[in-house]
Amino acid sequence: MKTAAEYLESMRGLNPRIFLGGKQVNLLENPTTMTVVRANARVYELAQDLQYQEIMTAVSPYTGKRVSRCLHIAQSIHDLEMRAEMALLTSQMLGTCNYRCVGADTLNALAGVTWEMDRDLGTDYHQRFIKYLKYLQENDLAVSGAVTDPKGERTKRPAQQEDPDVYVHVVEKRSDGIVVRGAKVSQSGAIGCHETVVIPTMAMRPGEENFAVAFAVPNGAPGITYISQYTPFTAEREVMPDVKYLGNPLYGQRETCTMVFENVFVPWERVFLCGETQFTGKLIARFAKTHRMNCGGACKVGFADLIIGASQLAAEYAGVQKAPHIVEKITDMIRIRETCYACSVAAAVKGREEPTGSGFYQPDDIFGNVAKLTVADGFWEIMKWAGDIGGGMAVTMPSELELENTETAHYVKKFFKAAASAGLRLRIAKFIQNWCAGLHGAGTWHGAGSPQAQKMALYALTDLEKKKKLAKNLAGIAE
Amino acid sequence: MKTAAEYLESMRGLNPRIFLGGKQVNLLENPTTMTVVRANARVYELAQDLQYQEIMTAVSPYTGKRVSRCLHIAQSIHDLEMRAEMALLTSQMLGTCNYRCVGADTLNALAGVTWEMDRDLGTDYHQRFIKYLKYLQENDLAVSGAVTDPKGERTKRPAQQEDPDVYVHVVEKRSDGIVVRGAKVSQSGAIGCHETVVIPTMAMRPGEENFAVAFAVPNGAPGITYISQYTPFTAEREVMPDVKYLGNPLYGQRETCTMVFENVFVPWERVFLCGETQFTGKLIARFAKTHRMNCGGACKVGFADLIIGASQLAAEYAGVQKAPHIVEKITDMIRIRETCYACSVAAAVKGREEPTGSGFYQPDDIFGNVAKLTVADGFWEIMKWAGDIGGGMAVTMPSELELENTETAHYVKKFFKAAASAGLRLRIAKFIQNWCAGLHGAGTWHGAGSPQAQKMALYALTDLEKKKKLAKNLAGIAE
Amino acid sequence: MKTAAEYLESMRGLNPRIFLGGKQVNLLENPTTMTVVRANARVYELAQDLQYQEIMTAVSPYTGKRVSRCLHIAQSIHDLEMRAEMALLTSQMLGTCNYRCVGADTLNALAGVTWEMDRDLGTDYHQRFIKYLKYLQENDLAVSGAVTDPKGERTKRPAQQEDPDVYVHVVEKRSDGIVVRGAKVSQSGAIGCHETVVIPTMAMRPGEENFAVAFAVPNGAPGITYISQYTPFTAEREVMPDVKYLGNPLYGQRETCTMVFENVFVPWERVFLCGETQFTGKLIARFAKTHRMNCGGACKVGFADLIIGASQLAAEYAGVQKAPHIVEKITDMIRIRETCYACSVAAAVKGREEPTGSGFYQPDDIFGNVAKLTVADGFWEIMKWAGDIGGGMAVTMPSELELENTETAHYVKKFFKAAASAGLRLRIAKFIQNWCAGLHGAGTWHGAGSPQAQKMALYALTDLEKKKKLAKNLAGIAE
Amino acid sequence: MKTAAEYLESMRGLNPRIFLGGKQVNLLENPTTMTVVRANARVYELAQDLQYQEIMTAVSPYTGKRVSRCLHIAQSIHDLEMRAEMALLTSQMLGTCNYRCVGADTLNALAGVTWEMDRDLGTDYHQRFIKYLKYLQENDLAVSGAVTDPKGERTKRPAQQEDPDVYVHVVEKRSDGIVVRGAKVSQSGAIGCHETVVIPTMAMRPGEENFAVAFAVPNGAPGITYISQYTPFTAEREVMPDVKYLGNPLYGQRETCTMVFENVFVPWERVFLCGETQFTGKLIARFAKTHRMNCGGACKVGFADLIIGASQLAAEYAGVQKAPHIVEKITDMIRIRETCYACSVAAAVKGREEPTGSGFYQPDDIFGNVAKLTVADGFWEIMKWAGDIGGGMAVTMPSELELENTETAHYVKKFFKAAASAGLRLRIAKFIQNWCAGLHGAGTWHGAGSPQAQKMALYALTDLEKKKKLAKNLAGIAE
Repeated sequence: MKTAAEYLESMRGLNPRIFLGGKQVNLLENPTTMTVVRANARVYELAQDLQYQEIMTAVSPYTGKRVSRCLHIAQSIHDLEMRAEMALLTSQMLGTCNYRCVGADTLNALAGVTWEMDRDLGTDYHQRFIKYLKYLQENDLAVSGAVTDPKGERTKRPAQQEDPDVYVHVVEKRSDGIVVRGAKVSQSGAIGCHETVVIPTMAMRPGEENFAVAFAVPNGAPGITYISQYTPFTAEREVMPDVKYLGNPLYGQRETCTMVFENVFVPWERVFLCGETQFTGKLIARFAKTHRMNCGGACKVGFADLIIGASQLAAEYAGVQKAPHIVEKITDMIRIRETCYACSVAAAVKGREEPTGSGFYQPDDIFGNVAKLTVADGFWEIMKWAGDIGGGMAVTMPSELELENTETAHYVKKFFKAAASAGLRLRIAKFIQNWCAGLHGAGTWHGAGSPQAQKMALYALTDLEKKKKLAKNLAGIAE
Repeated sequence: MKTAAEYLESMRGLNPRIFLGGKQVNLLENPTTMTVVRANARVYELAQDLQYQEIMTAVSPYTGKRVSRCLHIAQSIHDLEMRAEMALLTSQMLGTCNYRCVGADTLNALAGVTWEMDRDLGTDYHQRFIKYLKYLQENDLAVSGAVTDPKGERTKRPAQQEDPDVYVHVVEKRSDGIVVRGAKVSQSGAIGCHETVVIPTMAMRPGEENFAVAFAVPNGAPGITYISQYTPFTAEREVMPDVKYLGNPLYGQRETCTMVFENVFVPWERVFLCGETQFTGKLIARFAKTHRMNCGGACKVGFADLIIGASQLAAEYAGVQKAPHIVEKITDMIRIRETCYACSVAAAVKGREEPTGSGFYQPDDIFGNVAKLTVADGFWEIMKWAGDIGGGMAVTMPSELELENTETAHYVKKFFKAAASAGLRLRIAKFIQNWCAGLHGAGTWHGAGSPQAQKMALYALTDLEKKKKLAKNLAGIAE
Repeated sequence: MKTAAEYLESMRGLNPRIFLGGKQVNLLENPTTMTVVRANARVYELAQDLQYQEIMTAVSPYTGKRVSRCLHIAQSIHDLEMRAEMALLTSQMLGTCNYRCVGADTLNALAGVTWEMDRDLGTDYHQRFIKYLKYLQENDLAVSGAVTDPKGERTKRPAQQEDPDVYVHVVEKRSDGIVVRGAKVSQSGAIGCHETVVIPTMAMRPGEENFAVAFAVPNGAPGITYISQYTPFTAEREVMPDVKYLGNPLYGQRETCTMVFENVFVPWERVFLCGETQFTGKLIARFAKTHRMNCGGACKVGFADLIIGASQLAAEYAGVQKAPHIVEKITDMIRIRETCYACSVAAAVKGREEPTGSGFYQPDDIFGNVAKLTVADGFWEIMKWAGDIGGGMAVTMPSELELENTETAHYVKKFFKAAASAGLRLRIAKFIQNWCAGLHGAGTWHGAGSPQAQKMALYALTDLEKKKKLAKNLAGIAE
Repeated sequence: MKTAAEYLESMRGLNPRIFLGGKQVNLLENPTTMTVVRANARVYELAQDLQYQEIMTAVSPYTGKRVSRCLHIAQSIHDLEMRAEMALLTSQMLGTCNYRCVGADTLNALAGVTWEMDRDLGTDYHQRFIKYLKYLQENDLAVSGAVTDPKGERTKRPAQQEDPDVYVHVVEKRSDGIVVRGAKVSQSGAIGCHETVVIPTMAMRPGEENFAVAFAVPNGAPGITYISQYTPFTAEREVMPDVKYLGNPLYGQRETCTMVFENVFVPWERVFLCGETQFTGKLIARFAKTHRMNCGGACKVGFADLIIGASQLAAEYAGVQKAPHIVEKITDMIRIRETCYACSVAAAVKGREEPTGSGFYQPDDIFGNVAKLTVADGFWEIMKWAGDIGGGMAVTMPSELELENTETAHYVKKFFKAAASAGLRLRIAKFIQNWCAGLHGAGTWHGAGSPQAQKMALYALTDLEKKKKLAKNLAGIAE
């Protein structure tokens, strides 16, 4: 398995075409794109840390060797639990995405669906997929996933769009592979990964065969352009003389891009679904249930730990940590954190082999969906309390650069001191600012699908007939 | 194991001194006390039902035979899971208490604590306890638990009370046993059980030895008086010519009593703790964590199923089940149901052997506490939506007796008909009334301890130092 | 104006055909129907009380004399404010409906609509209406209102129903009047009022002329049958030897009935709309906006005062009123109370003359709607806190009859004593039970229309174009 | 009254010592400090706009002329209503602070308190104050207010602090004036105003006379240093080539500073309270109640309009505005908006003369407090829905500079087009980002005092005895 240094070295050989803020930038030179690389390096590092071995790695049934859990197909309930624990751990350690998380979940979804296609259709997708997977595992590559299409006119199906490119689709099938066009938006971390696995954004129907396509592309393949997100946080990272003045110094906010595919050639050995519309529903559903447990659930539990820890520090630094209303709010943050965690744990332990006979494991749908829903609302509550406990200071604080400005440092040190020094208070306030005035609120809302998607899933998954029968039974209504 | 008929027969031999509505009543003749007996009989019945065997029974390590899970001391994670499933199942089937639930949880708490006392103090409490447990298992007795003392002046400790009887305590120690005085309030189901296990309401301190007492008493032991609760539902059951006109015909609302101990003699073989104040904290804490998973969590999930089922029926009977806002509300009820369930599942699967080496299993504290907290709030939300979907009718409906009144039946049939007959609509509305205008809101709030108790537990159980360290680590604050 | 005694006397002459619990009952003998009479008597009494004169009465422009505000057509903002204050005051004093509230709001809605019809159509409805109003004012009659039709198949319009009677409608037009059939459900207090004013439940369309009918009927007119609601509270009132043992001794829960019209003849002078479908939308909209301010808003503010007062008493009686979490919860109840009150105040003060030139005043729609919505959710929150502060005792308490039972009184007195006597604690617990385990939760949800109705109104009333323009202006988007 | 141009001209003569991001900056050159100036200029402009005359101006009883309402002391309920309307209007027009709002509210608080001091103590503070006020009115000066002290050790009173400078205080009293030291934090807009009025942060006690001081200072008076807040938004404004690419192009986020007073001399005619500790409680309480109505309440209603408008636009641009869940969410945002507005309206119309006989009007305390509390929670809810409706795009969108980048423009235009052009969609998404990933969440939480301060005020202001009496009366408990 790669060390962090080896990962960094491997990035040097790449040359992705990245635009950010209207200009082309170099992956390893731009301060914002570097947060993605740095986060990935840290994940490699965690995988080498023996205390995290069980969480961050697993023994592959394909190579017989220990591989990154980001590349492992779950073989048991224990694997599902460790997968969720990995999401929790990396969030605690990064305060941003494990940018290999979507990749891991698309790989897990593809494992079962390709297995089923081969079984039912006599294709060789699964064989290809396993071969590709072994390549990833043997080279310990970082894989990101790309799921969300731009979608164009919301009231129209993919094939009805004026511009078909608003959904990724096959424009040419050749003997050696396919050519694809389109884009994926809100894509997390492809720029800093060796590979990106692409799956359809939703279930496709007959007649939409060209849009039913799943495949893998290497970073910076010809025809791929990455257009990075740009936010106030991008600007601040650009202008700040040292990352230590930023809210999340090393790893920043979550960085995404719009990943454009302009006639990208994909050889057949990297194509895992092509035209089999009847399997796209299962593919996206399996991705969703896994991702809602991990990204929707456990990941935000790790963020909650950071926010709770920072709020408690801010309260202690201000000297108010024993005020009953502060204790009440910290307790409420804990309540939300533990409820989200419980949903994620339940999703893992109530997981099951799916498809039957495949040996692959998927989490429970219902618990995965409520994990995400509980997080979606709960995260805003947690931010709210952080904003309350953090005080006005979390948004009105001066730059920490003033601490080094001879004309203002004495003022700042004097006036921001409380039960702790001004330096500590400003530092933790900046960290809180990163959360309660940052991108994660809206991001949490939509990561792993909008809350409405979970609601629809919950309603569809629930056996209302059974509940009606129970009520009738007690009420004395004969069937 | 007893059949329902055998249980009923065994009740005939008892003669508990019960008062209800200001008068003495006979357990098997009063319509309200009979709901407790009927509920217990149903639980015996469920234990005989093969499809529920794994949930309702377990093989006792003491008798080597299959026993009611209400009398089983959990020996594994699986036992904890099945214990929670039993709470869920009996709630679905009864729409009220499994009146043996508190008993089961006090027995489980006593198992570990008596084991520890024998190990640490050289007592023989555990030996006594196991002997008593085998007696229960061999005779398949219904056991209730009694926990909450009246408490008198809230600002004073037990030994400081003007009237010491506001906490159950030992008034005499004799060679053959002890004599106790006091009372337990909000006690569920003792009148319909063969035995009641009594434990202290809270951790006792040195100097409060007399209040540190746990023991078992048979139903109707000399000196015991049961003063039943009295509510509008009691009155309605009294006056109604047939139970079929009631909201929960057979099993009613949850029935409790104030159980008075006036110089009750308890032989030593039924005394399981007497004076060892240092073990009372563990005893109540273990009871609390178990009970919060079961009564606080899983039990209300079963109630939620009934309420959701009834709300869906009410919507269908009115013909509005497809209105988007109805679907949204049903979905929200499902969300709450599943979140509560997830907490309960997590509490069970993250349980552990406690005390180490004892072979006894206890659920996870934190998840048990959030199960209860999520339920406490969530249950009111569910009632709110049931009240919304049920319509004004849920509280303004006429008596179903009008359906048999020749002067009004044609009107009622005509005007309450919608997508279903008036009879069905009134029946399900009455069932909903039982919930959304009933005792369960406040009951759920306080069963297994008030929400404030869970909040204090959550705060105490949380490792804030670890979270602070995580935040400092990312913020760049050196330890 | 009538004294309470005169009102009671006037009731003696009536003989409404009332069924309750499957039997015919006498208005002045049945304990439940008497709560309505008693509540009305109290409202007459309050009108005589000089300290409440400004709230409870107004000078009629038609008689030139002081009349009950229940019979007054608002002539100013001040009238609207006093109208809301009356709702608040009577709720504080009754803990149940002012059963003349719906009547007052239907009269106010009819005033403007009849005025418009005469102006636009050359009818003489307004003249009739004013004549009828003067009759009411001069005789100081209690008037109830009837609005909600049974509705039958929800997906069908009135004229499409299999049984047209599920909407009140005209079956015959005669020279001297009309004959009507149908029913009104969830009707509050008609049994104890001299008159009932009936309006359509919704806007009627062309072709639904027969269903577009508004009129007044005297109590017990031939063809009218009242089928009372029946709840556990009805039963408890029946069996209790003295009202003092009940949760709301004198006035009880809100009592409603299904009011059946079987070929009821209404002379033309009592018909205020008949066939003018185009005015039914305005009629129900004006009723709704007024009623949402009063019943939806201010009324529940009065209930909130009672629940907050009782919760504070329960806390003091238990000796826990200074615990921070109790103070926090009481404060939250106050917050909700004041927010609801603010909405109601705003609805009144931002009211306006409507229709222009009529001299009649109507409250603001939007604020009336948010008053109702804030109450709908807020009331459940308040009940929740009351259930929390009230303790398990609020639902598990014994009957207060035990205090007079020589065999149990000493126990109850001993064990329910805390910082106050058992008698006081049980009394206030019973009062809290009346709220947090009573009918008002669901009742509040639906009184003045279901929350969904308010949401639809809010969305329809909002000028989204203006808000879009404001956003565009700042965002720099040219129109 | 000044035109916007005259205001801008007047700013040219100033030279405040401002630090931002570690460097000294020029008020009129720095892009961030310029947002304050631009916002103020817009407020001057609105005051000249005849359609807003009644809202933005009033006739001064001191000059007899029309003056800015920011400088007007409320003389009536109408003035209070117009004051709240001004807060609403400027928020709609600026999307940030009216930086003269705190100034207006401190002036109003001082008017009454100085009047009382002169009446009770025979001082001439009010005379001085009115003279100063006339000066402001005659010159139409922009006045900001400064309230919040750094506070140092939270558990210590001002006089006990190790460093007394953490509360603004008098260090010298001279014949011609006083010398003050200390700082005010989270100060809004002093840099762009001609004057700043300073009042104590809380009620002072005997022995804290030096901290009981209220006064006015001109912009940039000797000894004053302004240390500006620095956030990611500051950085983005710095690097962006044109403001049109920013979320709130002209007016930005709310900009505050830490305002340092280092031995600042204030002549007696500008001192309005000095040592009279017994009047400091009233001063801060009157400021709080006024500011909670305006900044806590009405101001955020204006922000809500912008966010609702933008969310609706985003939904329309995506083509999903008719989806039931979108309509539901927009409706919920409206509900919150109108509830907040109702509280603010009620605070104004239920205001009263205070102190009696002064002719000055103050809003109602309770409604002002619930306005702020409703806003505090409601604003996060509104942000949450905006984040939901805005979609992931609100945080993952590329820079709009890409629209002008020949290498990416065609991609961005293609892939972000839906029911509207990519340009419009990105523009409104950026505007939403400004809110739902901005500073206003935490800012709204703390502006006009933290929610805990309002809760304490609500509890203290409520007559619980009256509510207890109402409950006792109905429950049948004799007083």
